[in-house]
Amino acid sequence: MLDEAKIGELTFDEESVRRIVREEIERAMKKDPAARKACIIASKGTLDWAYPPLILSTAAAAAGMDASVFFTFYGLNLITKGYERKAKVSPTGNPAMPMQVPVADFFAGMPGMKTVATSMMKSMFNRKHVASIGELIDVARDTGVRLIACQMTMDVFGYQPSDFIEGVEFGGAAAFLSQARRAHLTLFI
Amino acid sequence: MLDEAKIGELTFDEESVRRIVREEIERAMKKDPAARKACIIASKGTLDWAYPPLILSTAAAAAGMDASVFFTFYGLNLITKGYERKAKVSPTGNPAMPMQVPVADFFAGMPGMKTVATSMMKSMFNRKHVASIGELIDVARDTGVRLIACQMTMDVFGYQPSDFIEGVEFGGAAAFLSQARRAHLTLFI
Amino acid sequence: MLDEAKIGELTFDEESVRRIVREEIERAMKKDPAARKACIIASKGTLDWAYPPLILSTAAAAAGMDASVFFTFYGLNLITKGYERKAKVSPTGNPAMPMQVPVADFFAGMPGMKTVATSMMKSMFNRKHVASIGELIDVARDTGVRLIACQMTMDVFGYQPSDFIEGVEFGGAAAFLSQARRAHLTLFI
Repeated sequence: MLDEAKIGELTFDEESVRRIVREEIERAMKKDPAARKACIIASKGTLDWAYPPLILSTAAAAAGMDASVFFTFYGLNLITKGYERKAKVSPTGNPAMPMQVPVADFFAGMPGMKTVATSMMKSMFNRKHVASIGELIDVARDTGVRLIACQMTMDVFGYQPSDFIEGVEFGGAAAFLSQARRAHLTLFI
Repeated sequence: MLDEAKIGELTFDEESVRRIVREEIERAMKKDPAARKACIIASKGTLDWAYPPLILSTAAAAAGMDASVFFTFYGLNLITKGYERKAKVSPTGNPAMPMQVPVADFFAGMPGMKTVATSMMKSMFNRKHVASIGELIDVARDTGVRLIACQMTMDVFGYQPSDFIEGVEFGGAAAFLSQARRAHLTLFI
Repeated sequence: MLDEAKIGELTFDEESVRRIVREEIERAMKKDPAARKACIIASKGTLDWAYPPLILSTAAAAAGMDASVFFTFYGLNLITKGYERKAKVSPTGNPAMPMQVPVADFFAGMPGMKTVATSMMKSMFNRKHVASIGELIDVARDTGVRLIACQMTMDVFGYQPSDFIEGVEFGGAAAFLSQARRAHLTLFI
């Protein structure tokens, strides 16, 4: 035989149920899987623009996120063998580049000026103990950042899998989308 | 008259309620509406940078997502009538562009070189059976990708609605934001 | 003494619990905190590319979102003192820039042409009553948009905190990530 008190212990009123639900939702939101994923597209191939996707993806991995970088268009160059030796910074068309010696665009467009700008940038990053691109790629691979080469770009520009550094995966836009649609952090660099 | 066994069937203990809640949250997360939306800004107007927003938005639509592209700044050109005929690729300022015949920046800056670079890119994409921009825009419209022209840019650059191809909508930054704030995939290209 | 009818009032069947759960999840999704945050990276330093991060972040703030702009790389220039006076638009390497008087790239690369392009753009934005960069930065600060200067870029390029306008915060990639991983709207401009 049960009385009302006994039943009260065994049952919930609507308010109790809603309280439990809110607790569980708050818990689920906190471990929101989308907050744990970073999907970055690297589309540019010059030395300066090689930094942001690698700095951001390795920082994301360091923060415990699953990070992947999809290299497409000119960005595909970044993960080819011997990239850093060939990479250039172009001062032309980028009047915001802080040159220590101001150079008029006309001269900046002359053969040789790209080499000067590239050396200046390499030395600036060096003096400040910022990792080189090669070092950042090593960090990326060591911390589990996925490096994905865009297959369509490979076809268009005539790259072979053997042109790429070790540890690179190959995938299309669909591969990128399947991850990016589940990630809060999505950037096109 | 009810005994404890009978009441057990009719009631839930807290653990059962939490289990149901977790099931429902998991189900809701799987059909997470933000995972079904892709909002892309197309801000650049050259032939090469016309590809990424159209390839990604049509791929998103093909994957069942609601995709929209907001054309702003130089990107507004992409949806004007006769864009492809006028579009150019600029080799200047882009030392990462893989030119089959290396061209020093100085020569790249001369009149006529842009035409050469543009032809080279058009022929590379052609040989590899990649759709032209016009074809990609057709695919976008056929698959329900929303093409939105930025009204502020239209005002600043003096465009009229009649300058645009069929099927284009017109909207401001607020229109973009109202969609993008509900989407996992947001890219500025 | 209780009969079955009385117990029915005090208990829930599984269907009722699931209905309550779905209601609460829908409510939680509507006030999805990720929909209220906008995290924008401003990486470019020219006058034209100064507009998008400021227009989008102030529009986001106007729509009630928590907006922050992380200024890095060349974008760091945008929040230095006297930026607007020094800022230039480069016509070189941007064949999509709608110049009222077409200028071959060769001439565009000559000293002085940048000044012409910059004046043209300033006057276009002016004639259309679009706010200047300085005005937009004022709006950003007034509406609570957080302006964050990238510390690594400061180190590399040799900036001091005193080089920046009032109201700027200082932070690293980790500061950006901690916000961006909780935001639907994340853009790299």
